[in-house]
Amino acid sequence: MREINASIPFDKRLWKQDIAGSKAHVAMLAQQGIVSAADAAAITGGLNTIAGEYEAHGVPEDLALEDIHMVTESRLAALIGPAAGRLHTARSRNDQVATDFRLWVRDAIDQVEPALAALQRALVGRAGDHTDSVMPGFTHLQSAQPVTLGHHLMAYYEMIGRDRSRFADARTRMNRSPLGAAALAGTGFNIDRHATAAALDFAGPTDNSLDSVSDRDFALDYLMAATQCALHLSRLAEEFIIWASQPFGFVSLSDQWSTGSSIMPQKRNPDAAELVRGHSGRIAGCMVALSMTMKGLPLAYSKDMQDDKPPVFEAHDLLGLSIAAMTGMVESATFRTDRMRALAESGFATATDLADWLVREAGLPFREAHHLTGRVVKLAEDEGVKLNELALEKLQAIDPRITDDCFTLLGVDASVASRTSHGGTAPSEVRKRIAEARAAIGMGA
Amino acid sequence: MREINASIPFDKRLWKQDIAGSKAHVAMLAQQGIVSAADAAAITGGLNTIAGEYEAHGVPEDLALEDIHMVTESRLAALIGPAAGRLHTARSRNDQVATDFRLWVRDAIDQVEPALAALQRALVGRAGDHTDSVMPGFTHLQSAQPVTLGHHLMAYYEMIGRDRSRFADARTRMNRSPLGAAALAGTGFNIDRHATAAALDFAGPTDNSLDSVSDRDFALDYLMAATQCALHLSRLAEEFIIWASQPFGFVSLSDQWSTGSSIMPQKRNPDAAELVRGHSGRIAGCMVALSMTMKGLPLAYSKDMQDDKPPVFEAHDLLGLSIAAMTGMVESATFRTDRMRALAESGFATATDLADWLVREAGLPFREAHHLTGRVVKLAEDEGVKLNELALEKLQAIDPRITDDCFTLLGVDASVASRTSHGGTAPSEVRKRIAEARAAIGMGA
Amino acid sequence: MREINASIPFDKRLWKQDIAGSKAHVAMLAQQGIVSAADAAAITGGLNTIAGEYEAHGVPEDLALEDIHMVTESRLAALIGPAAGRLHTARSRNDQVATDFRLWVRDAIDQVEPALAALQRALVGRAGDHTDSVMPGFTHLQSAQPVTLGHHLMAYYEMIGRDRSRFADARTRMNRSPLGAAALAGTGFNIDRHATAAALDFAGPTDNSLDSVSDRDFALDYLMAATQCALHLSRLAEEFIIWASQPFGFVSLSDQWSTGSSIMPQKRNPDAAELVRGHSGRIAGCMVALSMTMKGLPLAYSKDMQDDKPPVFEAHDLLGLSIAAMTGMVESATFRTDRMRALAESGFATATDLADWLVREAGLPFREAHHLTGRVVKLAEDEGVKLNELALEKLQAIDPRITDDCFTLLGVDASVASRTSHGGTAPSEVRKRIAEARAAIGMGA
Amino acid sequence: MREINASIPFDKRLWKQDIAGSKAHVAMLAQQGIVSAADAAAITGGLNTIAGEYEAHGVPEDLALEDIHMVTESRLAALIGPAAGRLHTARSRNDQVATDFRLWVRDAIDQVEPALAALQRALVGRAGDHTDSVMPGFTHLQSAQPVTLGHHLMAYYEMIGRDRSRFADARTRMNRSPLGAAALAGTGFNIDRHATAAALDFAGPTDNSLDSVSDRDFALDYLMAATQCALHLSRLAEEFIIWASQPFGFVSLSDQWSTGSSIMPQKRNPDAAELVRGHSGRIAGCMVALSMTMKGLPLAYSKDMQDDKPPVFEAHDLLGLSIAAMTGMVESATFRTDRMRALAESGFATATDLADWLVREAGLPFREAHHLTGRVVKLAEDEGVKLNELALEKLQAIDPRITDDCFTLLGVDASVASRTSHGGTAPSEVRKRIAEARAAIGMGA
Repeated sequence: MREINASIPFDKRLWKQDIAGSKAHVAMLAQQGIVSAADAAAITGGLNTIAGEYEAHGVPEDLALEDIHMVTESRLAALIGPAAGRLHTARSRNDQVATDFRLWVRDAIDQVEPALAALQRALVGRAGDHTDSVMPGFTHLQSAQPVTLGHHLMAYYEMIGRDRSRFADARTRMNRSPLGAAALAGTGFNIDRHATAAALDFAGPTDNSLDSVSDRDFALDYLMAATQCALHLSRLAEEFIIWASQPFGFVSLSDQWSTGSSIMPQKRNPDAAELVRGHSGRIAGCMVALSMTMKGLPLAYSKDMQDDKPPVFEAHDLLGLSIAAMTGMVESATFRTDRMRALAESGFATATDLADWLVREAGLPFREAHHLTGRVVKLAEDEGVKLNELALEKLQAIDPRITDDCFTLLGVDASVASRTSHGGTAPSEVRKRIAEARAAIGMGA
Repeated sequence: MREINASIPFDKRLWKQDIAGSKAHVAMLAQQGIVSAADAAAITGGLNTIAGEYEAHGVPEDLALEDIHMVTESRLAALIGPAAGRLHTARSRNDQVATDFRLWVRDAIDQVEPALAALQRALVGRAGDHTDSVMPGFTHLQSAQPVTLGHHLMAYYEMIGRDRSRFADARTRMNRSPLGAAALAGTGFNIDRHATAAALDFAGPTDNSLDSVSDRDFALDYLMAATQCALHLSRLAEEFIIWASQPFGFVSLSDQWSTGSSIMPQKRNPDAAELVRGHSGRIAGCMVALSMTMKGLPLAYSKDMQDDKPPVFEAHDLLGLSIAAMTGMVESATFRTDRMRALAESGFATATDLADWLVREAGLPFREAHHLTGRVVKLAEDEGVKLNELALEKLQAIDPRITDDCFTLLGVDASVASRTSHGGTAPSEVRKRIAEARAAIGMGA
Repeated sequence: MREINASIPFDKRLWKQDIAGSKAHVAMLAQQGIVSAADAAAITGGLNTIAGEYEAHGVPEDLALEDIHMVTESRLAALIGPAAGRLHTARSRNDQVATDFRLWVRDAIDQVEPALAALQRALVGRAGDHTDSVMPGFTHLQSAQPVTLGHHLMAYYEMIGRDRSRFADARTRMNRSPLGAAALAGTGFNIDRHATAAALDFAGPTDNSLDSVSDRDFALDYLMAATQCALHLSRLAEEFIIWASQPFGFVSLSDQWSTGSSIMPQKRNPDAAELVRGHSGRIAGCMVALSMTMKGLPLAYSKDMQDDKPPVFEAHDLLGLSIAAMTGMVESATFRTDRMRALAESGFATATDLADWLVREAGLPFREAHHLTGRVVKLAEDEGVKLNELALEKLQAIDPRITDDCFTLLGVDASVASRTSHGGTAPSEVRKRIAEARAAIGMGA
Repeated sequence: MREINASIPFDKRLWKQDIAGSKAHVAMLAQQGIVSAADAAAITGGLNTIAGEYEAHGVPEDLALEDIHMVTESRLAALIGPAAGRLHTARSRNDQVATDFRLWVRDAIDQVEPALAALQRALVGRAGDHTDSVMPGFTHLQSAQPVTLGHHLMAYYEMIGRDRSRFADARTRMNRSPLGAAALAGTGFNIDRHATAAALDFAGPTDNSLDSVSDRDFALDYLMAATQCALHLSRLAEEFIIWASQPFGFVSLSDQWSTGSSIMPQKRNPDAAELVRGHSGRIAGCMVALSMTMKGLPLAYSKDMQDDKPPVFEAHDLLGLSIAAMTGMVESATFRTDRMRALAESGFATATDLADWLVREAGLPFREAHHLTGRVVKLAEDEGVKLNELALEKLQAIDPRITDDCFTLLGVDASVASRTSHGGTAPSEVRKRIAEARAAIGMGA
């Protein structure tokens, strides 16, 4: 029983939040005259001492004391005597743990936030180097149209931007203090929940005591934002893994973010990228765990809710490692732009440009233009040449409206340069977006 | 192949969005001089005709035409001839489907939103009837302290409020138009993405074409918000099921939201509540499905992403039914407040009040007060009486500081009335919160 | 990188299996003449020394050495010098870790198996005490028909029996040795994979080297069996939680498996049952994690697969605690059979018996009999009496075919006793099944 | 309510099983003398008529009649009058639906089984064509050692073999008849559950009536086996997608299993493979759905369990399509063995062979041999030659023990041929395994 019941092996991670919450609580109790100034001072002093001890030596993992709250309260009693017993006036473990964990998750977001910003800076920085580096744009992992590497990297800037907005939304939603909800019903002591909320940098107190001790939405919000973020990282990881394979050869990962082989010095295993991809499964697993645990729980507190912390802790650790690893990989990767360009130039990737030219210049309906272009590509394939190497007369045999104006479009640089629609891959557009991004994330112009 | 490839059996649900998107697109093409006014008028007229046909007869499910986009384009060609082929100028199925589905999900949120508001109104309405109805407040499904039914119902008002904020956040985040991202790279046609975005009530266009056709965050945002909402509903459903059991007898569900038995007329199976609880599993399953499907997909569009729609459609249908059923149950349930009060009065649920009194009035530290109270409860248990039926002298034998002032607190009404901390269960507090809620959701004062 | 890459913090749990695998491998290498007898002896001796060290002091967690295999190999080199380098002949970390982990999971099953058998014994033991204890049988948590507590407990015996069969199937399926698959392609050394398989108690070697190093089915089989088992436990936990609530009062959990409250001595929080219920979510989360991690991985080994161990370790720990806690709860619970009987006797739970009597004795079609019974129940409800307290003439006014023979059936004991169909709740049937169960799980007659 | 409560829109898929179950039941009732021979004949005749109607016109979807059982019973009453009411004697909807669904899932397995066998035949057939086709074996998607395509395809044969064993285990475990468990408690009618079990080809009746109507393990067993199978298919799909990309060019998917582009005739989008990969997410989502729905349900039947069918139906449809698509892709793919060989020959993939030679022939410890080989590879890389193109004297400058014997091993064919360990990639081993496989799945020798 002791083993299944004790949460101290994991909830000791809450110690900073627990002490901060207790200090805010006792200061308010003193201010409201519920405990004496002397007792409050003794308690605060004791808590400071304990914080120093934890900082220096870690939290003692005593299963008999069950959880971080009892470990600390027990230590406080040893330090200051019976006055320690006044700290728990007008609160309960139910609101205490809800407060601690909420503070912890808020701190977790505050750690994720700059890490994501750093990843964005890495993406924008590398994108800035490659606004004109042509690579094949893929759909279905088939070369479809030329794009630029800068444009491709900036796609991840957008995803990470949404991740940041998701974490920010979660932070705003969770930023209410449950402290003072007590066991479940509130308290008859004349407490000031606004004061403790303010002391802990919450926007205010929660508005229903039953909900306050039963709610784990904030943990799910964190896990769901983490899952989406991990999915984005898994996509970039997949690309790095494929790009690093010999047949692609688009990227060479730095020694720091790959593992070599003593026997095959040319081999660089993209271990970090694979772990980032793998971790997305585990982070999603954490989210499923808590979702399932919360299903069908009656109000108010049920002990099942003690299972809220391990999935959040695990997901947070994995996400932190994943973001850091991905940032490192992006910063240090060597992109083989020659390989990218070579592949972009093969495979008739500018066929769409010819079709569009036929629509635009020759006035053909789109579907007819597509059909004609198919015949042109077939011709080039049969002759074993690129589209812009076909003889004009052969093109005109397919359709007399084709003129040599069209050739200028069939090179990959021209193709890319032409796509100037908002958010398109034209270097001019990408540069514009990079400038906006640099301003948004505080990089110099 | 045809069977695995065709999406028309499910994506026909997008028809309204598809036609709206096409009309916005062709209007813009005409405005920019990319198609002629005459062609644009023909296309718009044709689309209106098709919309009328779909409205009247449904969308024909022709697997050979694969998806809603081709079914409509094919019908358009039949109606207006080759000019139909100009509609697809400067767009691709990739941005088209991204636009359609985003519009659909936005509409889905716009349907969930008033349904949740209605549920809040039902909760607030019933809470208003029961601000003074005492019931046992549970932790661990054990009677812990008395609360009021109004307070309990208002806990769900708070949860649904967070759900609404989550859907609202998702809506804001998704409200950018991918139309014009074309296949993946943008287009060389001189399109105006801001115009189509505005025509479709988006806040503006997306900023990266690769991201635009690869992004399904909006669908995951929807599914994640739906999952949290479904979890909240599952908790209320669980409570209704337990409350409706004979030993509890706290609630009698209306005939409309339960099923009777021809043989046991007194039996009312809480089928609707059970289905709401069960549906939370399926909605979470939908979220897992799309999370897993998106994992590790390289940019830009991959066909896996066609599996985005069935989970969202299924979750939306289940969530809609669940919210409506729960609203109906809340509105029509008969609460057995006599049973609730009787149970609240048994089980020494006001023991904490005595402990708090000892702290407050006799100055004992909380932990010591708790210890003494334990002895009092033991005494009451042994004597088979309620706490407020104990003789004063027996109490004073336990601790002489106990006076008969404390008796006033030991009744459930006094207990509940005393918990006036912000968000507490005191009727005064609950009434205050109900007034705020009524204002917030537009119910009269 | 070191931090994301290192698996030693968790894979040190594999040390016993790693050393066993290495010893089997080196013995085979010696037998085949691939390493000398002297080298093999030195290696074996060194491994034994290391095992002793790990047993005594734990595995040193050196992130620089990355994983348990390198930590051990490095220690071996320190102990016996360059000969240590011969141990890795004809194997690779890929087949080594596949072997170690498979052995670990097999051992895990071998730990779960007796724990489940113990739970079955607890269930059967308590069922045997309660073959005649009448309780309400529920559907929809509504009292439906009387059953016996023994019958109810035996339902869980059946579930656990399926769990055992599922683990046994998984064990049989996984019991093939991947050792010797080497990196991915097998080896040119003249190894004897049947010998190492036999030494490690595998039924034989696996048959495809690529599959051998890529396969994690065995881990998923474990996680899926664990999930189903956890779901069964979550159901019993839910029942204990509801049964322990004051309105039910069907069970009183022992002090050992509940937590009291210093202030409310009569309160016993069913914490262990709640944690068992909560853990089912986390165990399912582990299964989802690995399922998602394995999705779409190309052959052969990818580093993502390093994420196979934490979910299995976590699920195994949680399942072990859950089974033990549930066994303890079942063994030590006090069932309030008086409360059960009282509730079974209220609520007209024998109405179906009357209907069946009408079918059987009066020859009515089932649907008509049901209709008449509904009228009888309504009459009893109106008069406020039990079914077997109604006057015969009033019954005959409803249908003249009713005779006083039927009264014998309307008591709960008679009802229960009558359900003698195979697997029915009649004490005679339950006793028969208990006897079979006792024989099957080795309990005395 | 009607909409959330009705299951007829999906459970009409159970009609065959429902009629088979009813026929078995009524035949037993007649045999036991519980209904008359005449009534039984009328009922059986009516059921046959209804089966014919359903076969011809489908099942009418009448929400008012709620489910397939009521639709059929109601139609039976219309056809044969009040005798129809005798069919439901001694059974309940609870055991009826448990029986029907179990039969359905058993049939589903019986459909999956031959589909998987066909996929195995396709794999073995193509493997037989390619026992000597050298390709790069990958770890981390990096070329590691040469293997053969036949060997690679046979890895999937092994996976599918485990899938078949998993479905077979599930079938055995579920193959017990719940019919006769009645509502939850069994029945007092003198029924013969062994007779109905035998009539429906079950191995026997279930042994506990409460468990019989509460158990959905069989559905979870199906979903879990389906998930693992889908994960295997997702891995092959991922490989086909990567292999079909232009830089790899290992495979050309047939027109039937890819989609072309009117504009880029050389492009073949691997849509079917992508859908197979995507479907794995949805199938896993179905499994999560039912796992979560079943969590914490008290005995016996709860309406939540009505949500068992949609996930199973969906998963079964998706799995069937996925297996068929993958079988078709395997059968019709054109493998570009020249590209495979060319890549296998680049990248020093035989470096391990040199290291192994040094161990075997020159007696070096493995770790030292690896170190030397690293230097050899570095030399080859610097000189821009393959390993077997290095001059002997340069090799001997690295280590004098190297002789020209080693060159024979450094070609990819020799490398592959040398790996003759059990399950290794040597063509001799692969041919042996193919022969075993052909025998096991009934292909000619």
